[in-house]
Amino acid sequence: MKTIPLILMGCGGVGSQLLQHIVSCRSLHAKLGVHLRVVGVSDSKSLVVASDAKQKELDDNLLTEVCRVKSDGSSLSKLNGVGECQTFSNSESRTEVLGIASLLGKSTGLVLVDCSASSETVGVLKQGVDMGCCIVLANKKPLTSTLEDYDKLVSHRRFIRHESTVGAGLPVMSSINRLISSGDPIHRIVGSLSGTLGYVMSEVEDGKPLSQVVKSAKSLGYTEPDPRDDLSGMDVSRKALILARLLGRCIELSSIRIESLYPEEMGPSKMSVEDFLNGGLVKLDNNIEERVRNASLNGNVLRYVCVIEGTRCEVGIQELTKNSALGRLKGSDNVLEIYTRCYSEQPLVIQGAGAGNDTTAAGVLADILDIQDLFP
Amino acid sequence: MKTIPLILMGCGGVGSQLLQHIVSCRSLHAKLGVHLRVVGVSDSKSLVVASDAKQKELDDNLLTEVCRVKSDGSSLSKLNGVGECQTFSNSESRTEVLGIASLLGKSTGLVLVDCSASSETVGVLKQGVDMGCCIVLANKKPLTSTLEDYDKLVSHRRFIRHESTVGAGLPVMSSINRLISSGDPIHRIVGSLSGTLGYVMSEVEDGKPLSQVVKSAKSLGYTEPDPRDDLSGMDVSRKALILARLLGRCIELSSIRIESLYPEEMGPSKMSVEDFLNGGLVKLDNNIEERVRNASLNGNVLRYVCVIEGTRCEVGIQELTKNSALGRLKGSDNVLEIYTRCYSEQPLVIQGAGAGNDTTAAGVLADILDIQDLFP
Repeated sequence: MKTIPLILMGCGGVGSQLLQHIVSCRSLHAKLGVHLRVVGVSDSKSLVVASDAKQKELDDNLLTEVCRVKSDGSSLSKLNGVGECQTFSNSESRTEVLGIASLLGKSTGLVLVDCSASSETVGVLKQGVDMGCCIVLANKKPLTSTLEDYDKLVSHRRFIRHESTVGAGLPVMSSINRLISSGDPIHRIVGSLSGTLGYVMSEVEDGKPLSQVVKSAKSLGYTEPDPRDDLSGMDVSRKALILARLLGRCIELSSIRIESLYPEEMGPSKMSVEDFLNGGLVKLDNNIEERVRNASLNGNVLRYVCVIEGTRCEVGIQELTKNSALGRLKGSDNVLEIYTRCYSEQPLVIQGAGAGNDTTAAGVLADILDIQDLFP
Repeated sequence: MKTIPLILMGCGGVGSQLLQHIVSCRSLHAKLGVHLRVVGVSDSKSLVVASDAKQKELDDNLLTEVCRVKSDGSSLSKLNGVGECQTFSNSESRTEVLGIASLLGKSTGLVLVDCSASSETVGVLKQGVDMGCCIVLANKKPLTSTLEDYDKLVSHRRFIRHESTVGAGLPVMSSINRLISSGDPIHRIVGSLSGTLGYVMSEVEDGKPLSQVVKSAKSLGYTEPDPRDDLSGMDVSRKALILARLLGRCIELSSIRIESLYPEEMGPSKMSVEDFLNGGLVKLDNNIEERVRNASLNGNVLRYVCVIEGTRCEVGIQELTKNSALGRLKGSDNVLEIYTRCYSEQPLVIQGAGAGNDTTAAGVLADILDIQDLFP
């Protein structure tokens, strides 16, 4: 049985789901000859680690307890004294994680799993790389920081996986990595990478006003609490940056041309969410309606996509032919069209749910299993 | 620089293309820190190996020469005396390959790459497994032999890759393996896995008679020399078997329900290709036309697919909703719809060219690179 030790950073929706997956996959993973040893779990406030990080683990009872505590909205520090573990405050947390990394990195490839949404983890991750740790990310922030940070994180390219940073568990990164290693040059990627914006664009295509569609999306729970976090395109542009960097483009987030679906004067610093939803949004209806109509006159549809091609990397509304995987998209699926030498006339298409804690955590888990051959 | 030693078995269209890819990817692979050392190449008649299999390789000049000799239709034995290599006849070939396997298997994970279409390679492959070799297959035959053979080949499950046995280079196996290792149970796979039959079914949907469509497909080079090799569904059923076995179904080829598009009395043993094309085929037009019409009355379309669900594994024409990736399929793309816990309402869809030497060889190459972490 091969043991993969890991520390989970971030224990919100995705992180908790990952712990549940790990526990429920015990017998499956045993059949695959693998045991995942969870050495520690941290959130933004605390860290809980096995009492003997070198040998022991947070057992399944403790992991279940971690999930329960988190779903109650309590702090991990509540676990102090429960089972064989120790808890640390946020200020001690970093030192403790790095201590374990230096103990286990080079010898075992200790996996630092980042399921947080924080830009604070990149420091620990970079030091972890130097200590021989493997890195698995669902968190986009570390990969969309500076190029210097990015290069550091991917410097041991076989030691990092980050499938769930784009399209949740969809096999996007793994498929692109296969294309790269087979020397099939990627000419163009066009992707609808936001379930929310995919839904919005296919609904306005059906003639509904943007304002109404966004409000329905919000009430269906498809959007962030402030829908402008989706409509700004920032989340999509982070995903575009991760894809572009994977293709070898040395660019920063600031180099990406991003089309926001609302104007600056309706931004969060100038207008409350309520004012935006009840007053601002409706002013955007006519423009979108007209663009939809014009596209339709050309036999086309509008999609909010990222386009990566040559030196071009942009995010925004594009007019696309109806007769394509992207053009036919309905609902909240993510769709990627990848054009290469081998997929030149018809693209390689990967499509499916691109959000949700379950599939995001499943992607992280597949990544962890995927690096099992690096260490004995 | 990590060296991956390999022996290529089968040097027809796919094998030759693989050698060309290996040569043209030298600088790319060097950047990835990997060097592919081709120790030997065999076809059905001969074997050519580096003069010192333990240390040396067939260099790029020799590999290019191998491709030239093969494209001329000549024998590999012609290479005797060219560069630092030795050639062996078919009768010596197996012993020689196994000699190298025993020399390099356990210590280096020597990769046995099967790009043949032969059922004769399974013996060498099985012995290679015992000697610690890795296995990469484009050849479906070894995996669709008996369950006993299959179990032997996959007994070291991290030591085998066979992406290009289904959907050519499409990331099918790698994606399914990710789902499996993340514990996301696969409830149902429906796939159009024959470019030829995909083309045929979408053309008859447009009202063309089957006989005419098959003849056009043949003249376009989409079919095997005898189109019945496609229409029988045998090739699709081998792919279905590989998928089903990957999902853990312990079944034999004979357990798959296969719908042939021609009746037994028009089979190759009873009718020549010419008689089939000029007399037999036209008799099948009415039946297909009626089925297409009936499906259309239900708002559906017909597709020739494999369906794997529970204990069910069958291959044939299915009536499917137009409003799905499979229903919208036009032309010769392969499409897979995979339904799991995470992809339950909308499936995970993988679509693209599922045939061609270039993409098949690219899939093989990605597989070879994918096992680089198993050996130092």
